[in-house]
Amino acid sequence: MKRTVYGDDHEAYRHSVREFLARWFEPLAADVRANRALPREFWLAAGKHDLLGLEVPERYSGVEAGDYRFNAVLIEELAKMNAALASSVSIHCDVVAPYLVHLTTDEQKARWLPGLCSGDVLTAIGMTEPGGGSDLAALKTTAVRDGNGWLLSGAKTFITNGYSADLVIIPARTSPSKKAKGITLFGVDTSLPGFERGRKLDKVGQDEADTAELFLDRVRVTDDDVIGELDRGFIHMMSFLPQERLGCAIANLAHAAQILLETIDYCRERKAFGQSIGTFQHNKFLLAELVTQLDVTQAYVDRCIEAHSEGKLTPIDAAKAKWWTAEIQNRILDHCVQLHGGYGYMNEYRVARAWRDARVTKIWAGSNEIMKELIGRDLGF
Amino acid sequence: MKRTVYGDDHEAYRHSVREFLARWFEPLAADVRANRALPREFWLAAGKHDLLGLEVPERYSGVEAGDYRFNAVLIEELAKMNAALASSVSIHCDVVAPYLVHLTTDEQKARWLPGLCSGDVLTAIGMTEPGGGSDLAALKTTAVRDGNGWLLSGAKTFITNGYSADLVIIPARTSPSKKAKGITLFGVDTSLPGFERGRKLDKVGQDEADTAELFLDRVRVTDDDVIGELDRGFIHMMSFLPQERLGCAIANLAHAAQILLETIDYCRERKAFGQSIGTFQHNKFLLAELVTQLDVTQAYVDRCIEAHSEGKLTPIDAAKAKWWTAEIQNRILDHCVQLHGGYGYMNEYRVARAWRDARVTKIWAGSNEIMKELIGRDLGF
Amino acid sequence: MKRTVYGDDHEAYRHSVREFLARWFEPLAADVRANRALPREFWLAAGKHDLLGLEVPERYSGVEAGDYRFNAVLIEELAKMNAALASSVSIHCDVVAPYLVHLTTDEQKARWLPGLCSGDVLTAIGMTEPGGGSDLAALKTTAVRDGNGWLLSGAKTFITNGYSADLVIIPARTSPSKKAKGITLFGVDTSLPGFERGRKLDKVGQDEADTAELFLDRVRVTDDDVIGELDRGFIHMMSFLPQERLGCAIANLAHAAQILLETIDYCRERKAFGQSIGTFQHNKFLLAELVTQLDVTQAYVDRCIEAHSEGKLTPIDAAKAKWWTAEIQNRILDHCVQLHGGYGYMNEYRVARAWRDARVTKIWAGSNEIMKELIGRDLGF
Amino acid sequence: MKRTVYGDDHEAYRHSVREFLARWFEPLAADVRANRALPREFWLAAGKHDLLGLEVPERYSGVEAGDYRFNAVLIEELAKMNAALASSVSIHCDVVAPYLVHLTTDEQKARWLPGLCSGDVLTAIGMTEPGGGSDLAALKTTAVRDGNGWLLSGAKTFITNGYSADLVIIPARTSPSKKAKGITLFGVDTSLPGFERGRKLDKVGQDEADTAELFLDRVRVTDDDVIGELDRGFIHMMSFLPQERLGCAIANLAHAAQILLETIDYCRERKAFGQSIGTFQHNKFLLAELVTQLDVTQAYVDRCIEAHSEGKLTPIDAAKAKWWTAEIQNRILDHCVQLHGGYGYMNEYRVARAWRDARVTKIWAGSNEIMKELIGRDLGF
Repeated sequence: MKRTVYGDDHEAYRHSVREFLARWFEPLAADVRANRALPREFWLAAGKHDLLGLEVPERYSGVEAGDYRFNAVLIEELAKMNAALASSVSIHCDVVAPYLVHLTTDEQKARWLPGLCSGDVLTAIGMTEPGGGSDLAALKTTAVRDGNGWLLSGAKTFITNGYSADLVIIPARTSPSKKAKGITLFGVDTSLPGFERGRKLDKVGQDEADTAELFLDRVRVTDDDVIGELDRGFIHMMSFLPQERLGCAIANLAHAAQILLETIDYCRERKAFGQSIGTFQHNKFLLAELVTQLDVTQAYVDRCIEAHSEGKLTPIDAAKAKWWTAEIQNRILDHCVQLHGGYGYMNEYRVARAWRDARVTKIWAGSNEIMKELIGRDLGF
Repeated sequence: MKRTVYGDDHEAYRHSVREFLARWFEPLAADVRANRALPREFWLAAGKHDLLGLEVPERYSGVEAGDYRFNAVLIEELAKMNAALASSVSIHCDVVAPYLVHLTTDEQKARWLPGLCSGDVLTAIGMTEPGGGSDLAALKTTAVRDGNGWLLSGAKTFITNGYSADLVIIPARTSPSKKAKGITLFGVDTSLPGFERGRKLDKVGQDEADTAELFLDRVRVTDDDVIGELDRGFIHMMSFLPQERLGCAIANLAHAAQILLETIDYCRERKAFGQSIGTFQHNKFLLAELVTQLDVTQAYVDRCIEAHSEGKLTPIDAAKAKWWTAEIQNRILDHCVQLHGGYGYMNEYRVARAWRDARVTKIWAGSNEIMKELIGRDLGF
Repeated sequence: MKRTVYGDDHEAYRHSVREFLARWFEPLAADVRANRALPREFWLAAGKHDLLGLEVPERYSGVEAGDYRFNAVLIEELAKMNAALASSVSIHCDVVAPYLVHLTTDEQKARWLPGLCSGDVLTAIGMTEPGGGSDLAALKTTAVRDGNGWLLSGAKTFITNGYSADLVIIPARTSPSKKAKGITLFGVDTSLPGFERGRKLDKVGQDEADTAELFLDRVRVTDDDVIGELDRGFIHMMSFLPQERLGCAIANLAHAAQILLETIDYCRERKAFGQSIGTFQHNKFLLAELVTQLDVTQAYVDRCIEAHSEGKLTPIDAAKAKWWTAEIQNRILDHCVQLHGGYGYMNEYRVARAWRDARVTKIWAGSNEIMKELIGRDLGF
Repeated sequence: MKRTVYGDDHEAYRHSVREFLARWFEPLAADVRANRALPREFWLAAGKHDLLGLEVPERYSGVEAGDYRFNAVLIEELAKMNAALASSVSIHCDVVAPYLVHLTTDEQKARWLPGLCSGDVLTAIGMTEPGGGSDLAALKTTAVRDGNGWLLSGAKTFITNGYSADLVIIPARTSPSKKAKGITLFGVDTSLPGFERGRKLDKVGQDEADTAELFLDRVRVTDDDVIGELDRGFIHMMSFLPQERLGCAIANLAHAAQILLETIDYCRERKAFGQSIGTFQHNKFLLAELVTQLDVTQAYVDRCIEAHSEGKLTPIDAAKAKWWTAEIQNRILDHCVQLHGGYGYMNEYRVARAWRDARVTKIWAGSNEIMKELIGRDLGF
């Protein structure tokens, strides 16, 4: 089904992103995988090519695109190139950026945004805590008042970009007795005393993204580092979740679409028992099922992109998009591996790495179970 | 996800269809089920209320809506009321009508269309033959030249509206050696000598639709009864399949949506072990999964409706819509039955009948396997 | 996989059951379906042929086989002939019989068992109540002390054999404040004043079994009609559930096995596009999957039969067998319908009726959800 | 369901295997994983502890157990410890051993078997070729007659133990025109000139097993190295496939069983939203489904073990066991990952590695598709 969500300007931007990635990511890809992190020169180059500041006002060196569909195009092209690239870049410019644009003072904007756009200030957000999982309201990190500042103590885990980030948004408990209503967001410079990072986590996939544990031991920040309103951090986080989840959905599907496309090509070229393996009826029907599921899901994601561009995407629709695309992505990739036979199990093949990459999408940023809980509640249960 | 495919005029038409059905179908529903056929007075009333001639030019008493979205609204409302009602009416005004509007001479139009619009001439199309299944090119019914006319002989089966129809489009083999390229369509008056019908078939579901076998024993028709071009019947049929399949998809999904809605209500009201059954986490998650699948699929069907309204729906996209909606419909309805417990197995419950109704949608009008074959071929396999 | 659970004597009994059914059921099958109940002459003939009293001591006219594998063989052959036949007969001789054999006084045995064996006293058990579903402990039927007797009042629904039964086991609340520990079983003669039956329920399938609602309005019974111990009815019911559930499992699987066998034959004979439809790779792989699932499941059911023959079947293993076979049966039958194409939707085809018959097995006698609850609890959750 | 296939002697052997693994594998596990190969000292220790020669006659230093159930116990314990350990050891003593025991001359037995039993001669079998996949009959490696010997040339890939093996069974084409009937097996000493190995393959999982490509460039062997009959290599391979596939099935299921057990424990201990995660109804039902599928499948595998112990296992029953267990194993492990949340994506967790390990079982040793092809053919299609 021909997509209708994008216009010529979006496609032109897509073209430029593709060119950028072909030049600035592809030659590095093997190194990035081995180092399990994007190098700073990549971020700086991305900054120069207008990839990082789509949401940022021009006066703070951003692109100020004013149209989420450019974000969507960017995520799609990143995900088609590499799933972990999409995760890592998205966290920076699609997940963290809105906090720094919409909740901050002019002084904070001036301090943080130009670096975010240029790639000089790499960002992350520290939502998950060890043992905490999807239960954001159970947050244990504390911010204790200390003179005119705060002392932050606690631990975060599974933090994408955590190993390299210069600035991390840290939700911490400022009013311990008030549960979800006692959490505040802080912008924490990772060079501050008391801020430590664990090693890069050894993950099943997403090799190219650095993921780390963070430890805060009485890290001193000031009131100027508070992002948004005191004690309203939980609500702030909730307000940006739809965009984060839509971003996940876009990446999930673009990733699966690209690998499926490559697999269909493989099924044309690869012969067994004297014929292209795609012509075996079992495989033919399977591929027909997969492209159908992809197309059907794309129509929904495109509707979400459209709605979000108009400011109308509901958290429930975003939740549906997130879990369903994760499900479809994993289903498609599992079949793509099988269609590659033994080669599908070799890490040098893109399909093998893609399969490993995809597994986390049913878990992170609100697991499929959490999404279903939200949707079920919305039905009145 | 809010749907955007319809405008105010479509919703106004929806309203009028609903009113019509509440007044003209609901009071008859039990009788229709018992008689396994819609009564003629229903058809005549439908004609009077502008349900039957949406595609027909005004000069032949039609509505000439010129916008497929009205057809879509009609199908949705019929399917929400009753699946077999949707099948039966769709065959008449959404499947047969295009043949009689687009392939016919002025004389034929004048002869057939006013009756089609008024409900005086109930129609059917006889594609499937005993033992023939989905293999249209294996057609056995013959049309043998006889003077300036033709003698039609053969058998058709699973013909919706077959028991009541006044006019049946009969594809028959006019050039036996030319396979798919030797088939011609005939408009056959069912009162002609040699035309016989079997009994109403006793089906698993779709109780309200009459379905029959038809037998033609040297039924004499003339050149004036040829619909479209000689020997091009197969191509004619192919050209209308996308609309037929989209119509199936629309009905499949609207049917499932309605029963799911009713089931969600049931899960709110019905208590077990002291709580609403929808609040059990297993059921809550299940319902979340079902509404997600429904919404996602609706986005795709709506894109198909949009594309078809612009004359751009491809046969492959229609094939995807048809099989996937059939799959989703059956999946949803099976869970809806389960959620009703023992009551879901009682025919007096709508959900039980809906479950029986739905089973055929994976089989008729091109089975899911045929759809996958088409989609797989389109991938080059 | 060759089965090893049965010996020659079991196979000899199987042979005699088959002969009996070929003679006494097959000629009646269409009538039974139309009447939605087995006629009394069938029951009497079954009694004469030693089908009904396998568990009953010889002194009460039973067979006293002393080996559950004979019951298993009987259930398999009944289910292969007709699913509703298996349900109806099983309730009588495999579900009710143990209550009357193991919980009764000599007087009760003498009163009830010879008739159970001969088919003169047709039996049922009234567990489910309107709105009560699977929640046995929520039972509303009451037994109020009245002189030296009891007055039973309440309603039961979905009672297999309910329309024809002469004797129904009725659990009723004798100590209302004691919840599950205040239920007592009564053997109720259906000719007693105050005992009424509703019409035969119009079910989705299982056409041949009569199923009814029962209404008790101050039906007077005596202490001699109490089955087992006062207030221990719930525990009595629990103790016989494993056998009932194993019986369901055996029937589920034998039913699916038989229809799958017939479908494989059909796939050999039926041609489409010039070849046997079973030779299409999609169908070939599908049938391979189905026979695998059947064989795998049979191995488990056979282990359950073996264990139950030795008195070692746990309620959890029976629960696993029940829900899994129901799942597999429905999965297999759905594919069997699809493989039959349009004919699979016609009630005159066995596969169509079998598909309707099977749907209830995921619901009755403890729904799949209840089984999973039990199994999950056994894991400690 | 309590298993009945094993007796006390098997359980005693299980105990000794467990002790061996706790002492000789567990302390090495991290190193084995890092080196991607079992060290020779492990093999030698295994030899000393009677793990390697169960099928080998005592006169050639074997255990001559004469009962396949000991092999089964060994495979189960290996797989419960580590999936790749099971693969690697099984290839040596359960897949290669039968060739060397049943097809060899006394001289060959004396030359090869004592080393196989002691671990001094590590073995592999080179069935798969680059681009050849599951199509054994398309073998390209050639054996050209050269004086009284043969020159072997060709390439093999995905060879478990290939990097470390001292002896590899190499099927090669001796009569090129005779297709499957022109293949001969050779026992090839890997120190021979012209025998080269590629690097250890970088696989998605099974980290602990060395897997390699092998290259043969005019490797000279003699008639004394021919295993079995000339030109009958294909038939020889076919004859041992049931045992290989049953071995796969046993390992698949034991592996899944162990990780599921550990996951159930995890679900008891791990809390979220204030309760053990296993008590959430969604998880509880899921775990109930998984243990059911495990138990059901175990019953079938046990029947296969029983049958194979009696020499009665058919290739079709083995094929069913292989693909179904691979399916169930992967299904179970995917859910186990999900139940672990983010930790399930970290390689330091057993469940994460197990998930990666399992993916290959649907592909190797005859893919699930090949198994279904065989089963389908057996149905007559």
